[in-house]
Amino acid sequence: MASSSSFSTCTLHGSVSGPKSMKCYREFIFNCSSLFKQSSNPRLIALCADLTQSRFLSNVKSKNWEQSGRLLPINGVQCQALKVENKISFSVGNKFQLNDVIEAQQFDRDILNAIFEVAREMEKVEKNSAGSQILKGFLMATLFYEPSTRTRLSFESAMKRLGGEVLTTENAREFSSAAKGETLEDSRRTVEGYSDIIVMRHFESGAAQRATATASIPVINAGDGPGQHPTQALLDVYTIEREIGKLDGIKVGLVGDLANGRTVRSLAYLLSKYQDVKIYFVSPEVVKMKDDIKEYLTSKGVEWEESNDLMEVASKCDVVYQTLIQRERFGERIDLYEEARGKYIVD
Amino acid sequence: MASSSSFSTCTLHGSVSGPKSMKCYREFIFNCSSLFKQSSNPRLIALCADLTQSRFLSNVKSKNWEQSGRLLPINGVQCQALKVENKISFSVGNKFQLNDVIEAQQFDRDILNAIFEVAREMEKVEKNSAGSQILKGFLMATLFYEPSTRTRLSFESAMKRLGGEVLTTENAREFSSAAKGETLEDSRRTVEGYSDIIVMRHFESGAAQRATATASIPVINAGDGPGQHPTQALLDVYTIEREIGKLDGIKVGLVGDLANGRTVRSLAYLLSKYQDVKIYFVSPEVVKMKDDIKEYLTSKGVEWEESNDLMEVASKCDVVYQTLIQRERFGERIDLYEEARGKYIVD
Amino acid sequence: MASSSSFSTCTLHGSVSGPKSMKCYREFIFNCSSLFKQSSNPRLIALCADLTQSRFLSNVKSKNWEQSGRLLPINGVQCQALKVENKISFSVGNKFQLNDVIEAQQFDRDILNAIFEVAREMEKVEKNSAGSQILKGFLMATLFYEPSTRTRLSFESAMKRLGGEVLTTENAREFSSAAKGETLEDSRRTVEGYSDIIVMRHFESGAAQRATATASIPVINAGDGPGQHPTQALLDVYTIEREIGKLDGIKVGLVGDLANGRTVRSLAYLLSKYQDVKIYFVSPEVVKMKDDIKEYLTSKGVEWEESNDLMEVASKCDVVYQTLIQRERFGERIDLYEEARGKYIVD
Repeated sequence: MASSSSFSTCTLHGSVSGPKSMKCYREFIFNCSSLFKQSSNPRLIALCADLTQSRFLSNVKSKNWEQSGRLLPINGVQCQALKVENKISFSVGNKFQLNDVIEAQQFDRDILNAIFEVAREMEKVEKNSAGSQILKGFLMATLFYEPSTRTRLSFESAMKRLGGEVLTTENAREFSSAAKGETLEDSRRTVEGYSDIIVMRHFESGAAQRATATASIPVINAGDGPGQHPTQALLDVYTIEREIGKLDGIKVGLVGDLANGRTVRSLAYLLSKYQDVKIYFVSPEVVKMKDDIKEYLTSKGVEWEESNDLMEVASKCDVVYQTLIQRERFGERIDLYEEARGKYIVD
Repeated sequence: MASSSSFSTCTLHGSVSGPKSMKCYREFIFNCSSLFKQSSNPRLIALCADLTQSRFLSNVKSKNWEQSGRLLPINGVQCQALKVENKISFSVGNKFQLNDVIEAQQFDRDILNAIFEVAREMEKVEKNSAGSQILKGFLMATLFYEPSTRTRLSFESAMKRLGGEVLTTENAREFSSAAKGETLEDSRRTVEGYSDIIVMRHFESGAAQRATATASIPVINAGDGPGQHPTQALLDVYTIEREIGKLDGIKVGLVGDLANGRTVRSLAYLLSKYQDVKIYFVSPEVVKMKDDIKEYLTSKGVEWEESNDLMEVASKCDVVYQTLIQRERFGERIDLYEEARGKYIVD
Repeated sequence: MASSSSFSTCTLHGSVSGPKSMKCYREFIFNCSSLFKQSSNPRLIALCADLTQSRFLSNVKSKNWEQSGRLLPINGVQCQALKVENKISFSVGNKFQLNDVIEAQQFDRDILNAIFEVAREMEKVEKNSAGSQILKGFLMATLFYEPSTRTRLSFESAMKRLGGEVLTTENAREFSSAAKGETLEDSRRTVEGYSDIIVMRHFESGAAQRATATASIPVINAGDGPGQHPTQALLDVYTIEREIGKLDGIKVGLVGDLANGRTVRSLAYLLSKYQDVKIYFVSPEVVKMKDDIKEYLTSKGVEWEESNDLMEVASKCDVVYQTLIQRERFGERIDLYEEARGKYIVD
């Protein structure tokens, strides 16, 4: 594998001698495409929908619901069908409330289960219906201070597949008032006036947290510099469970740039919510996993180990997760980038 | 206040000793957010809707209306509700016709009143209904030759909140045929073929006027270099009336970069439509208000005065309007920028 | 004529002594505007709809149709009206199947006729109905590695006018993972997960072909470097027939940068599908039509001739097609650009 962040599932039961490499792109489209010909990207749709909808669904019987006419779903066949499905999901008790999605630590196991349950329902919606209008009337702003066509379009696709609308900026860093010296908080406050939810990608760690501090609408962190990428990690964990059938007791190898890879950081946090998980870190010396994550895992009783031997780790793991070593994360230190890249390659 | 164009309302009745600083962002979202939790940006929506709709509403009984099937609103609960409201508004006689919106001078007091009346109706729509579909089937092109996330998204939000659709270019200067030597008129003519209305931001004064000269669809000037920003001024005047309760007889301080600030230029033109208005210009020497505006005000019988003393002016004013001193307006003259910035700061 | 790619129709019947210059912009809006006041860009809409819909329409009675719920058109007045029209069109036997649109050679005369037939139907839809929802539920991704506001917005306008939705990136080359070393195939595979059809503009010849090799959804080539621009050529041929009334036996002058002009390359391929066509190439020496096209034409029995004398050629032709000589196609060879530009100008 050359240049894409990827994800390998190693099913080592039976006599398999090497990892069964399933290149699973960050949005998992590749894996799903044979299953859902017409409904591309169902999982992301489901998850994004969850994040956006959680307020929505959990409020159905609350007082707020009555007060906010705009949240009322448009009546219609698809929508009613969906409501039935959701009623089933949520009648078993998995109510949850999400506001901002900023960092993987914020989730607990119950909320993760509830999200994944809606995600599974959403997969059915995409497969069997004429599309959903469940987010009709909602406006999502994708505020990307660092361009990322892949992540941006995945959110926008999810929103549009569910009947919502999108306001978008591909490169807020260059194109917006940021260039005029406006603070992130000011920009967020303005965009908040135009939309119902903000999806933000930023080049600085902690930016999403700062933006959300005073926000009156939900903010989703779609990557903040070397910080976190929690929705990516939700997808990763969801996919692991889907492919492996379990999350407790799994052995996961995290490979590549672990110092700058925000997706592995978020994934490690999420994995710590499950029992008897063992994590192997495999990375070049210059981009080793940072201490904050190691300390967090230890404090949560998660076993972890560092290794230089990818093949040995792979033979022990249920899942090998590999991140792209990105030049942009090294800034001026091209020498470190040159040293790190290409050291561990999964074909 | 640091870096955002802002707006302060000084209510000096009673014993208030200093200006009651209400940071009112250009789109006034900040001020409205507590009022309209679900319906962000109602005022802008209302105004944008006005501008777009004015043709629409004023044509209801005209012959053109019968001929243009595409303009027919989609039947539906929200839409009917809105039509009733509009019928009320317009049954009191405030019919108006708008085509292009190019410069603040083009409005007269009757049209301003009619626009504000629809704006007030639109606020109700946003607050009490499940959204509006009144612009369903309309396509707005936002043709921005100079990036401005804030202004662009405000128009797009308004359009989408009212059921319309948007074609967008964030940076036509770099991304379009402009780079290939195509004239603005050619670009406009092409985009005119794709859309029902064009919202244009350009880096040159007079660009909107040039673009509209031969246009067969309406063009809205969303800022043309140091020229004008008429829709911003509509919002500003609307908000002043909303906060102060009147427009005749008010005293307004215009503070900051008055030479390059297109919003203050447009605002001065609009204020001249009202009676007994007094305007105070407070600015660094290098960015004083230009003579064309002063002469226009004098010709219209509007009193104005220049001053260096912000605090003294503030104590006399009902409203203090402050513009951001933007580096980009100074071109190569960084020295002038350094001299001008930070001279008058409202906290 | 100064700076826009253009198209001139010379009707030399009667005593007309010079070409009747009809500046017909690439999207033909200019010519159509007087005909379709409300429905701008009907031809492009029609054609884009064709391309997108062809699968759709040709599948109506096929088995696949039953299986794909998402493709089912939303019931409604407009839609039913359209279906009737289409039934008429297609009841005369012009069924066709299109997947990718990569190069002009892929079309045969029957498919061209069938496409143009739907295009004519689409013009009616735009003129006489309250808009179409025939593409409702479809999501088109415009993946532009080279910015082109004009071409991009034309596709997006068509999609939205027909009820579809759009995911867009204005400048994938700079903004996407391309900058991180991701291959075109990877990007395409990801975007494929989010959308139902991809419209791709790329800076390299052959890029669309490469992208489509393994794609599971249709890809439309909206220009690949100096390669081809097949949908533009479809429009050009459609417009020639519309203006001249025929395609067999016409004499066409292709003028300007014929070496780098992808639209003339695609147009030459399409013209070769018709009988007794004669093509005149008029270009500066440095940007003469390449041998591959000349050889293709010869192999198909199409007469062609090179000339330096625009006026003489124009007097013989039914149609003169002029391309813009674009600096960007010359790369470092500014000297060649300077030599070529402005040599043949049609006013």
